Amino acid sequence: MLNFKEISFPLEFYIMTNPILNSFLPLFYIAWSDDVLTEKEATLLQESINSQDWLTKADKKELLSKINIDNPPTRTELLEWKDSIKKAVNEDSEEESLTDIALKLALLDDPKISNEKLKPLYFYLQNLEKSLGIISNEAVYAFKETHDTITSKYSTEATFSVEKLTEILDGNQAEIINTVKKVISRPTFKYETSTDIEVYREKVLKWCKILAKEGLGATAYPKKHGGQDDIEAYFSIMETLSYHDLSLVIKFGVQFGLWGMSIQSLGTEKHYAKYLKDIGSLKLPGCFAMTETNHGSNVKSLETTAIYDHKTKTFTINTPHKLARKEYIGNAARDGQMATVFAKLIIDGKDHGVNAFIVPIRDSKNNVLEGITIEDCGHKMGLNGVDNGIIYFDNVIIPKENMLDRFASINSKGQFVSPIASDNRRFFTMLGTLVGGRIGVPRSALAAAKSALTIAIRYGDQRRQFGPQGGSEVPILNYRIHQRRLMPYLAKSYAVHFALQYVTQRFVKRQESEMQEIEALAAGMKAYSTWNTRDTIQECREACGGKGYLSENRFDALKNDTEVYTTFEGDNTVLMNLVAKNRLTEFRNQFGEMNVLSLFNYVVDQAKTSITYKNPFATRNTDENHLIDSEFHIHAFTFREKEIQASAAKRIKKLLNSGLDSFDAFNIAQHHLINVSQAYLERIVLEQFQLQVENTKDEGCKAVLKKLCQLYALSTLEKNASWYLEQGYMEGVKTKAIRKSVNQLCWEIRQNAVPLVNAFNIPESCLSAPIVTKQ
Amino acid sequence: MLNFKEISFPLEFYIMTNPILNSFLPLFYIAWSDDVLTEKEATLLQESINSQDWLTKADKKELLSKINIDNPPTRTELLEWKDSIKKAVNEDSEEESLTDIALKLALLDDPKISNEKLKPLYFYLQNLEKSLGIISNEAVYAFKETHDTITSKYSTEATFSVEKLTEILDGNQAEIINTVKKVISRPTFKYETSTDIEVYREKVLKWCKILAKEGLGATAYPKKHGGQDDIEAYFSIMETLSYHDLSLVIKFGVQFGLWGMSIQSLGTEKHYAKYLKDIGSLKLPGCFAMTETNHGSNVKSLETTAIYDHKTKTFTINTPHKLARKEYIGNAARDGQMATVFAKLIIDGKDHGVNAFIVPIRDSKNNVLEGITIEDCGHKMGLNGVDNGIIYFDNVIIPKENMLDRFASINSKGQFVSPIASDNRRFFTMLGTLVGGRIGVPRSALAAAKSALTIAIRYGDQRRQFGPQGGSEVPILNYRIHQRRLMPYLAKSYAVHFALQYVTQRFVKRQESEMQEIEALAAGMKAYSTWNTRDTIQECREACGGKGYLSENRFDALKNDTEVYTTFEGDNTVLMNLVAKNRLTEFRNQFGEMNVLSLFNYVVDQAKTSITYKNPFATRNTDENHLIDSEFHIHAFTFREKEIQASAAKRIKKLLNSGLDSFDAFNIAQHHLINVSQAYLERIVLEQFQLQVENTKDEGCKAVLKKLCQLYALSTLEKNASWYLEQGYMEGVKTKAIRKSVNQLCWEIRQNAVPLVNAFNIPESCLSAPIVTKQ
Repeated sequence: MLNFKEISFPLEFYIMTNPILNSFLPLFYIAWSDDVLTEKEATLLQESINSQDWLTKADKKELLSKINIDNPPTRTELLEWKDSIKKAVNEDSEEESLTDIALKLALLDDPKISNEKLKPLYFYLQNLEKSLGIISNEAVYAFKETHDTITSKYSTEATFSVEKLTEILDGNQAEIINTVKKVISRPTFKYETSTDIEVYREKVLKWCKILAKEGLGATAYPKKHGGQDDIEAYFSIMETLSYHDLSLVIKFGVQFGLWGMSIQSLGTEKHYAKYLKDIGSLKLPGCFAMTETNHGSNVKSLETTAIYDHKTKTFTINTPHKLARKEYIGNAARDGQMATVFAKLIIDGKDHGVNAFIVPIRDSKNNVLEGITIEDCGHKMGLNGVDNGIIYFDNVIIPKENMLDRFASINSKGQFVSPIASDNRRFFTMLGTLVGGRIGVPRSALAAAKSALTIAIRYGDQRRQFGPQGGSEVPILNYRIHQRRLMPYLAKSYAVHFALQYVTQRFVKRQESEMQEIEALAAGMKAYSTWNTRDTIQECREACGGKGYLSENRFDALKNDTEVYTTFEGDNTVLMNLVAKNRLTEFRNQFGEMNVLSLFNYVVDQAKTSITYKNPFATRNTDENHLIDSEFHIHAFTFREKEIQASAAKRIKKLLNSGLDSFDAFNIAQHHLINVSQAYLERIVLEQFQLQVENTKDEGCKAVLKKLCQLYALSTLEKNASWYLEQGYMEGVKTKAIRKSVNQLCWEIRQNAVPLVNAFNIPESCLSAPIVTKQ
Repeated sequence: MLNFKEISFPLEFYIMTNPILNSFLPLFYIAWSDDVLTEKEATLLQESINSQDWLTKADKKELLSKINIDNPPTRTELLEWKDSIKKAVNEDSEEESLTDIALKLALLDDPKISNEKLKPLYFYLQNLEKSLGIISNEAVYAFKETHDTITSKYSTEATFSVEKLTEILDGNQAEIINTVKKVISRPTFKYETSTDIEVYREKVLKWCKILAKEGLGATAYPKKHGGQDDIEAYFSIMETLSYHDLSLVIKFGVQFGLWGMSIQSLGTEKHYAKYLKDIGSLKLPGCFAMTETNHGSNVKSLETTAIYDHKTKTFTINTPHKLARKEYIGNAARDGQMATVFAKLIIDGKDHGVNAFIVPIRDSKNNVLEGITIEDCGHKMGLNGVDNGIIYFDNVIIPKENMLDRFASINSKGQFVSPIASDNRRFFTMLGTLVGGRIGVPRSALAAAKSALTIAIRYGDQRRQFGPQGGSEVPILNYRIHQRRLMPYLAKSYAVHFALQYVTQRFVKRQESEMQEIEALAAGMKAYSTWNTRDTIQECREACGGKGYLSENRFDALKNDTEVYTTFEGDNTVLMNLVAKNRLTEFRNQFGEMNVLSLFNYVVDQAKTSITYKNPFATRNTDENHLIDSEFHIHAFTFREKEIQASAAKRIKKLLNSGLDSFDAFNIAQHHLINVSQAYLERIVLEQFQLQVENTKDEGCKAVLKKLCQLYALSTLEKNASWYLEQGYMEGVKTKAIRKSVNQLCWEIRQNAVPLVNAFNIPESCLSAPIVTKQ
């Protein structure tokens, strides 16, 4: 309570006849403001006033006239009230309550009024406020010009060196990454804005030629054929290019990756010598013609035929019916001169499974060759700078040497020979050598997510909307819900970054014996990363509101170009099924088919051991240090992985034992199987992130990465909370505490959010979005 | 076990020297096929064979030679094995096991072989299979040409009359719906495929003129001004047009809804007489200029000024700085001649809050007027047929009568007069009259979701991929995971349909006293429906794979055009916050501001009563009939709604009591508040769906709607499972059982899925997607 004796201030007008009644004004104003005085409140006020002995009849009448629900004060009256109340307000004090102000108004008449008279009034008004539900020191802001709050005062403050974090992210690839960034920052790489597909395609081809000239296209090829023999750098190039135009990335990937590496992986020295140099220089644009209209996921059942003719030693490539045409083939509609065509090899009427053949489709002047029919796939949601086409083969004859013969060939007697007996196995071995695509795509997807996060987080830091009453507007990134929308994706993108580094390393340093595992890992991370990108960009777009809808702010291209990432290089849902089957068999496995032999022995055993994981003391542990403890996180993730794996295996076994066909049994368990893969991938991602945190030397970077890792872990646990509750691994108090921790981490990371996206170090020319690069 | 005495079949070759050893062949083939014989399996087989007394040394040697892991059989050998085994297989039998076939092979040598000799062999082989984990009657399909499974045989089968369900969906609006469908099915409404924005805009304007000519634009206006006085029909038109082009819908909505209805809602008779007829005929294209660059959500803080000049009796409309320009204004960039401009009214330096004014921006020859600067918003993610623009006003003078004066005006003395004292309150009353937009948008969004579902579900029914070994490929809609992806959205779209019918009825038949509630309901359902559309279209696109990525199959337009639906007419997240505040106060409330008065009294009381909802006997009830019981569903939804509402109120009160600023307190609870709204909306949606089921007379329709309603209820409970587990409202056994029920309902509804989307009765010309209309 103020010392009223010391108060003195000028006030030249009265609202009430009896000045002491002015002490009711602040309350009345609050009650009427925004026109929300309810009958209940009016009654409460009336009754209270009527019960006061110290008020005269006239006083009461006057007071009641101001709260007559049938005769509300006019606009002008309300403004007058407000003006007089404002004069009693001390702008600089943060402690003044509504009652303090009320008393100041009462003092107008007689500044020497006794404390004995004021005290009862003070407590009376306080009680009145309370019964009306008014938060006193809160309501004061209705009469103030400024209003600072915790939410308003919060802002960006970096606690680490952005440059050092960039170094950590780039690692040993910094040099090539910076080279690529320099190239794509050149003026000639200014984004194409024409909506004319042909103009766009021409521009993308031009860009690709520049990259080829810089020697970037051939990076992965053998040195003797114009390359650097550096697949790791190739992936870094793909990822870095993805900060720029994604049509460029895919065109680049089709030419140098799919087309070139199909030669490199499936062909032999004679093919390398003949083609690789021209492919790397883009003198020979080509296609990777696998998918057919009727067979996209189930490529084992492709229907294009390659019939061997013993006499002429040639193959006849043919499209047996319309829906066996090659579809979505990149580089086909406009530029491709040759194609690696996947077709069933037939010798003497006998089917030897799907093999790969080099088939010319256009001459060097770009005329489509005889027997070849090409259609344009037409306008797509995105990637319109890539000329996807449809190819039909009408008995096109190619020489014997055009068979890519690393894994199978036709000997001099015209017999089919292969070191791999099973057609299936051979086909999936061939596919396995192409696993690089499933590393390039998720890394490209991640780059797109990083671009979206950079734009949305910088915008959220600048854009102000709403604020406390009387205070200025607040950066939208200070709102908890906005943090909730973006911070977990920021953490997840860092998590995926390190996981994809890991997959890349596993692939680069692979042993033959690890191939099954690496294939499954890449397939799974392809799905995990591309779905993450889909969700991240979507949330970022929405977080930027109408600005996010304008093409100039990049979400249009980012969202639409990456939209097909969840489909190509293997439909994500199909891949997740494959990963699950790989996890269940845990030994050499075929892509695309489930072998029932010895399926469950390994996995079922695990069910028993995992029980011991469940620690009854931990299920209710909501200690803050425990919740953010990395040991707890990895334990929970691993428990989930093993338990789901075991329960899926048990379930399928049970279904099979009940006499169900395995195809039906696996169908029934499909939903469960997707979770097997999901849990596996989440464990891998967390494990790699934790490892990265552990290995980070710089203290500032280590601390912020640790927080991001905690957020990734806890928001994933939150997402899976119902499962943990069902299992009894956690109780409600704990999942609630986790939710609270996620909120808190979001709040804390927000401070570093802008520096964290700046550490992605995306060229400003690539970001380009006017909402963050200019106003 | 077969009666071997009766078996006789021709077989002309042997694989093994000793014919009885051929009985091992099927096992060996299975073991080697797909190249997956592991060392563990080889050892198991070797040990087993070595332990058999009845085999000679030579027999053993021969058998072991076939399972030597270092010397696998060649491709040709494997094919020979398979060929000989196949001859022993009875194609027609579904009961033949691998052992049966093995014994038939053994019989080759001596068809009269005694049962005594066969029996031990039979059991030996069976045991061997078992220890290898082979499912015997399953493995047989490796040698068969056909393979039917439950999954393969499942297909579309309607259990209700599609026409009758369409009647239920259309209700009393069938006539206007069919009229609109006929118009948009005309050849002139063929989709525009040009990527040239100007061509597209021209086409959309042309379409709008046709609709205006048909009298559809003026439907909601008073009869005396050329309309039908039928707002309900207007919503039906918006929704039905949304099966066609969404740029058309938005252009239509801007002209006849936003522009026309701002005159109708905020103006008075003189404005109606002067403008409405020309607006309805599209002779006078106009804009709704509210949003500014700096203020989209927080429109209360708009900065454009309208300064009154007493002398000339005019207003001067001005854009005080660049970021106070009007942005995203539909009809502005190209066609609009006038605009309803929202600006702060200033009289004699005094701010009277945001009011609305009619401002001419172009002359009738389409020249931009003096003082007006218009920029094009440029290319957008979608809706490129709508000419969104930016408008700057440089002291543009308009006459006094251009103020839309239903809620405030300037009297003859130049004084501001209004029946609503509070500027805030008046502004939100004005906004309230425009709530129609928040009914039109979610209904348009729903139509887009229905289009996407129709395409994806029909495609899923036709598209075949993978299948059981040796069997034909299976429609992808038969896969459980595919059903899981689409069926819940199908159910939810039906649910949202009936909920939006309800909102429409509430709005059409509204009483003044219900407005707050209806505004919150519309705001909430706008968010609920548009987010549902976002998710539905996304899932449908992915479910159609590469085909879904081609623009011709419509997902491009559907996704990108509706992308901004979650943003315009109120950002969804902001709306959800507003709905929550409305729910918390549950009495007359201001959009955009939270009044602390009497906030919690009502809600906190509920916390106590809701405890009694929790029935300890029900938390573990997994009885099938209970799980699909509508009483259980609505009980669980209502419990959640009340409990979250109460806990949010308690939490905020606690935060305020701790001395926190209310702005900070509400910020901390934002995540919680979104759940308040979500739970409220889910309860409303379920309630209306259940009511619809109850009121449906036709038995076939009633049954299928009931299943959809169950699926909506259970998949929503599944989504919220962790909350129910935390609360102890359900135990793990029950949430697991719910998951199982969802799977089962998806499987059952799949049979009716195509008829259910056909009941939407979307014109084929609108669907247009080649993947479902032709091949």
